[in-house]
Amino acid sequence: MEVGSSKRKNYPVPEPALRRMPCYLAYLKQEHRKGSKYVSSTLIARDNGVDPTQVTKDLSYTGIAGKTRVGYEVAPLIDALENFLGFRVMDKAFLFGAGSLGTALLHDHGLVQYGLKIDAAFDVDPKVLGNEISGVKIFHIDDFIKKPQSDVEIGILTVPAQKAQDVAEIMINNGIKAIWNFTPVRIKVPENIVVQNTSLYAHLAVMFNRLNSLPEEK
Amino acid sequence: MEVGSSKRKNYPVPEPALRRMPCYLAYLKQEHRKGSKYVSSTLIARDNGVDPTQVTKDLSYTGIAGKTRVGYEVAPLIDALENFLGFRVMDKAFLFGAGSLGTALLHDHGLVQYGLKIDAAFDVDPKVLGNEISGVKIFHIDDFIKKPQSDVEIGILTVPAQKAQDVAEIMINNGIKAIWNFTPVRIKVPENIVVQNTSLYAHLAVMFNRLNSLPEEK
Repeated sequence: MEVGSSKRKNYPVPEPALRRMPCYLAYLKQEHRKGSKYVSSTLIARDNGVDPTQVTKDLSYTGIAGKTRVGYEVAPLIDALENFLGFRVMDKAFLFGAGSLGTALLHDHGLVQYGLKIDAAFDVDPKVLGNEISGVKIFHIDDFIKKPQSDVEIGILTVPAQKAQDVAEIMINNGIKAIWNFTPVRIKVPENIVVQNTSLYAHLAVMFNRLNSLPEEK
Repeated sequence: MEVGSSKRKNYPVPEPALRRMPCYLAYLKQEHRKGSKYVSSTLIARDNGVDPTQVTKDLSYTGIAGKTRVGYEVAPLIDALENFLGFRVMDKAFLFGAGSLGTALLHDHGLVQYGLKIDAAFDVDPKVLGNEISGVKIFHIDDFIKKPQSDVEIGILTVPAQKAQDVAEIMINNGIKAIWNFTPVRIKVPENIVVQNTSLYAHLAVMFNRLNSLPEEK
């Protein structure tokens, strides 16, 4: 895996397409494991609950096209998708807020496989400062502000909701370009800052509602 | 907090509205902390980057309406939102796959505050069986199949992608009604089963693409 951020050469791709691509990737890896050499867009479409035209369009962003009758060659398509999605270049990140959810993310080694390595964590709670979780040390947020310029451009925001906006501003003022926001707060940021919202509890709310709307069993 | 699933009396609400509600909730809690007694839909709208009409419509699902000129009374609206979103009734869940991400979720005590308590975890890896993480014990998946009928209706799916469909079927065949799917696989389920997809790595892909599409700095 390459290290660094030599990958700033993309153009923005529609979010729904980007979100479907990791599903295709997981699917192709399964096919690869089963020994499939080729797979058709019809099959990818059927097994992922998507329209075949959509599959062709989504995959075209990677620069790979299927061949008539045989379809896509599995191994090169896996490579192309992983490269395209940025999973093969290792990006560094700082984590802000080493509470319960922050700690949970530090335990998730899966992130590294997808190209994200957490380099350091920051908090203000004396009880956690100096601790190390999965090899990542927790520093005081002031150490982030005082640190020399770094090449870390991604910040993971897992502070309590009432601190989200303040900490986001500290992040931005100190070189963070993309914020992965796990708080339920809609943070306000300048135009040139990327925000990716991932509110687990919002997903939970949707799931509860759907479960509670199921017809009662007899 | 109530325990049990006496809450199956909802009707399905559009997903975008459900997803916005936890943002309003976080916002209202902040206002409450600041001592605000009332807050207008205009203010909620402005601070959450939503249209005021949208706010009024979203909040109307809770059964609470704002009053002319004063707006919404903060404390009762917080109660109504938490009740409506199912965060005040404790639902039990089983976790399937105590690998890296599964373990991470077991470390997140935040889930309990939002009404989800993980009762037991299941895996097949002898290295983790019998372990206890944050008070949750890890059993063999066969113990799930052999267990007497339980009132647990929610299953969290954090197994490796290639096991996702098989394990989902085991879950469904043994009483699970709602699957919180953290794998990138689009699992196939019968119509009466709820699936909530939360692929962290899909979000990561979107963030990478946006970051890499930022204009190069001079």
